[in-house]
Amino acid sequence: MHGRGKSLTDLIRQRRGDLGRLPDVVVRPGTEDEIAAILRAAFEADAVVIPFGGGSSISGSLEAEPGETRPVISIDLARLNRVLSVDATSQLARVQAGVFGPDLERQLNAQGWTCGHFPDSFTHSTLGGWIATRSSGMQSDRYGDVAELTRGMRVVTPSGLLTVRPVPSTSTGPSVREMVLGSEGRLGIITELTIHVRRVPAERNILAYLFPTWPAALAAMRDIAASEASPSVTRVSDAPETAFSFATRNSPTPLDRVKSAALQAFLRRKGWNLEAMCLSFIGYEGSAEHVAAQRKLAERIVKRHGGLGIGSSPGQLYDQKKFDTPYIRDFLLDRGAPADVSETSAPWSELQRVYDNVRAAGHGAFDRLGVPGYVMCHLSHSYHAGACLYFTFAINPPEDHDALEDYGVVKRAIQQAFVDSGATLSHHHAVGTEHAQWLEEDISIPGVAMLRALFEGTDPGANLNPGKIVAARPRHQTGETISEGESSSSNGRPGGPRSSLDAHESSQPPA
Amino acid sequence: MHGRGKSLTDLIRQRRGDLGRLPDVVVRPGTEDEIAAILRAAFEADAVVIPFGGGSSISGSLEAEPGETRPVISIDLARLNRVLSVDATSQLARVQAGVFGPDLERQLNAQGWTCGHFPDSFTHSTLGGWIATRSSGMQSDRYGDVAELTRGMRVVTPSGLLTVRPVPSTSTGPSVREMVLGSEGRLGIITELTIHVRRVPAERNILAYLFPTWPAALAAMRDIAASEASPSVTRVSDAPETAFSFATRNSPTPLDRVKSAALQAFLRRKGWNLEAMCLSFIGYEGSAEHVAAQRKLAERIVKRHGGLGIGSSPGQLYDQKKFDTPYIRDFLLDRGAPADVSETSAPWSELQRVYDNVRAAGHGAFDRLGVPGYVMCHLSHSYHAGACLYFTFAINPPEDHDALEDYGVVKRAIQQAFVDSGATLSHHHAVGTEHAQWLEEDISIPGVAMLRALFEGTDPGANLNPGKIVAARPRHQTGETISEGESSSSNGRPGGPRSSLDAHESSQPPA
Repeated sequence: MHGRGKSLTDLIRQRRGDLGRLPDVVVRPGTEDEIAAILRAAFEADAVVIPFGGGSSISGSLEAEPGETRPVISIDLARLNRVLSVDATSQLARVQAGVFGPDLERQLNAQGWTCGHFPDSFTHSTLGGWIATRSSGMQSDRYGDVAELTRGMRVVTPSGLLTVRPVPSTSTGPSVREMVLGSEGRLGIITELTIHVRRVPAERNILAYLFPTWPAALAAMRDIAASEASPSVTRVSDAPETAFSFATRNSPTPLDRVKSAALQAFLRRKGWNLEAMCLSFIGYEGSAEHVAAQRKLAERIVKRHGGLGIGSSPGQLYDQKKFDTPYIRDFLLDRGAPADVSETSAPWSELQRVYDNVRAAGHGAFDRLGVPGYVMCHLSHSYHAGACLYFTFAINPPEDHDALEDYGVVKRAIQQAFVDSGATLSHHHAVGTEHAQWLEEDISIPGVAMLRALFEGTDPGANLNPGKIVAARPRHQTGETISEGESSSSNGRPGGPRSSLDAHESSQPPA
Repeated sequence: MHGRGKSLTDLIRQRRGDLGRLPDVVVRPGTEDEIAAILRAAFEADAVVIPFGGGSSISGSLEAEPGETRPVISIDLARLNRVLSVDATSQLARVQAGVFGPDLERQLNAQGWTCGHFPDSFTHSTLGGWIATRSSGMQSDRYGDVAELTRGMRVVTPSGLLTVRPVPSTSTGPSVREMVLGSEGRLGIITELTIHVRRVPAERNILAYLFPTWPAALAAMRDIAASEASPSVTRVSDAPETAFSFATRNSPTPLDRVKSAALQAFLRRKGWNLEAMCLSFIGYEGSAEHVAAQRKLAERIVKRHGGLGIGSSPGQLYDQKKFDTPYIRDFLLDRGAPADVSETSAPWSELQRVYDNVRAAGHGAFDRLGVPGYVMCHLSHSYHAGACLYFTFAINPPEDHDALEDYGVVKRAIQQAFVDSGATLSHHHAVGTEHAQWLEEDISIPGVAMLRALFEGTDPGANLNPGKIVAARPRHQTGETISEGESSSSNGRPGGPRSSLDAHESSQPPA
């Protein structure tokens, strides 16, 4: 349970009985003081500490390094599961880090509040885990990514208790709050958060639309983002994912069949190519008046791009089933077909190019491997300047292939296409170990140097979840950075920077 | 010009002929490559590098340390002043870091765009400076603080060119983008940014309102923030600042006098105490339809809290004069009266308490000094969970007092009241040297340790604007952190952390 997460690689290795470097001990502390005591003991014993929330990481954030010789302690935070208080005036809740999504919403809903954070992993993941991985949820267009809805923090670190005050905005140097976000356990153990909450909305609708083509659908989402509408969900599937959705819906009733045939005939008369059609969901939340006004604004844009409203039942179905799709992965794996997801984000102007490159990379990999494969995609989050593209891919390798190797070829091709296209390595699944190899290509070499400085300076013994985000350097190098600089130059700087600055002149701006 | 910023302390010392540790050289590079060459030369010569934008810092971010024995280079970025391109599809502009506010808006407006960032210092500050200090503008309620509207970055660092991709959101570890924001030159020289732009709105209104009391006005702003209205400006002055506003307006015409007398009579009949009255401005921007809808929503809330609309002319006047008020500081200083500003932010539920504590601290300081003084305040920015309180204070010390010392007593009392009240040290004026002494009380000791790790790890020789945000440690200590750990424990950790964790158990959550 605590040895690793739920990445495709994790699942395959698990099924093969390859358990990896299991933790030597799992502890389940009930208080922050217990966590501080565990950390003290761990540092005293030179042990490795890996925080554990829901275990749903798909980026390899939870597994000890294969050659780890020190004791490995998994700190399971599930006992820290309470909403401690709600400040109704400030719309803020103090919440313990280990609470699971459904439990968080249940406790908040009981007082009329919602956090509004619904990642795909919602039922199996925790608030602390969302923050440690910079998660986004299905309604983040309205509620904000977890980075926006998190204000106050309490984190047990090697230098004591880090407290980030729950202030709305601050200019006190580089944001320590934003350093904890996405830190995957490398800075300490997150124990408590103060998060935005909102009143449960009076109305909440998710409506379905069809677009004649993917470019038309992207353009509509872009124009909605630039408009005065502010929907809670903007989601559109490409043609392959639209076909997948229709293929996996519940068995249609005779009436459904008649309706569906009538719709298809209508669309054909309008000149649509039904193979290119894209299914979209747009969500509206708030007062009846607000929902009506938002819907009017959004639908004007949908219409301008040739889109067509198809009512509320597909949206209701999506809303009911929204956490179910990932389970299909296990079903497929039982049949020898690895399937996984990779997501990115890019500016609006680059989305089509990123999309084309990623599809070409996926299909190129299928061809090289000689295996049948499928890539589908949806736009899952809209922002002022761009959007998240969320890809799902699957292959069906023959029995004489190593499924894990084939999967790796496809996964690497897709991630490489992200960074080669100027998009980001990960929009909301974090880095862990599985994405670490591309980090320099995304945030540049000096960006990785900044992360190293932060991690190595605050945890020089690399006891806190080592190897995640940036790979560990051999331990003797950690010390060298300074000693080398001191011996080789009068100003205490290492030799490295000079050559880096020399190299700069040939560097090019990213796409 | 380049020796320091424009803090009250800076102005007084300047008038006294105390010029501080002036830079030995001012360079005005025209390209990123020239900046890289300067940085290379500076590191080779073990020189100190201080980036210079508009020179409007009021936190001591621009001055070399008094005892600095190394050469000091001020890098003036004013030649990097161009909007390089606008991506209309993504609503993003690539802009050089040295552009001044008015020049930025002129270049963007010419293409129908606006950045929408208008800090008080707008006319005298640069885009790069806003980012290096995590600035906020008068319309940030709509356009976002500079941290939100900045996406891509290019920064010349000791390890080469840092490039942050202009993606809308990412989960690639702790945010490097947010490390550059607020870094005050300690990580490198910011050369280019990719920022959000928006179409110049069709309508833009700033309307004035009166509230019977400060608590009523605060409650109205809080309810607007929690509502479905999204105004571009939410500003309300307390009673002393309202009195100041009325006292400093243009000479009234006879008609103004009549109107004013009629309004006063009307308010008295309503039972208002005119001494407690608070002036507020709420801004609306967008299409005519959007502005009308927003205004209706906001005014319903204003009315519920006893507020009263007084039309558009005070708002127009505010909009015209909005960058002028700071000039009064020089006028007052000519008359021996130091005046300054300090701002903070806190959750809505804490604002009244913070306000009361800060006023008490200011007046307590006046009493201790035996000088006449004035403290006034406005709420300047609203967020989901709280707001910024922006205090202005002035004293009129007798001639036999040292104005700088008296000022220091008041300034310190106010900053101390911020951190003692659970509010932040600074909402948008950064840390520099003048706020550094309270940083640990705001972001906690481990927070400062994280900033130190970042700065010392990426710039171990402390060549990049040393002493800002966190005070420099004596240089031999920088090396000791690791060597001590290596000699005293098997895991390479310093002795510090253990005792810090021990100390943790007695630590208390912040207010």
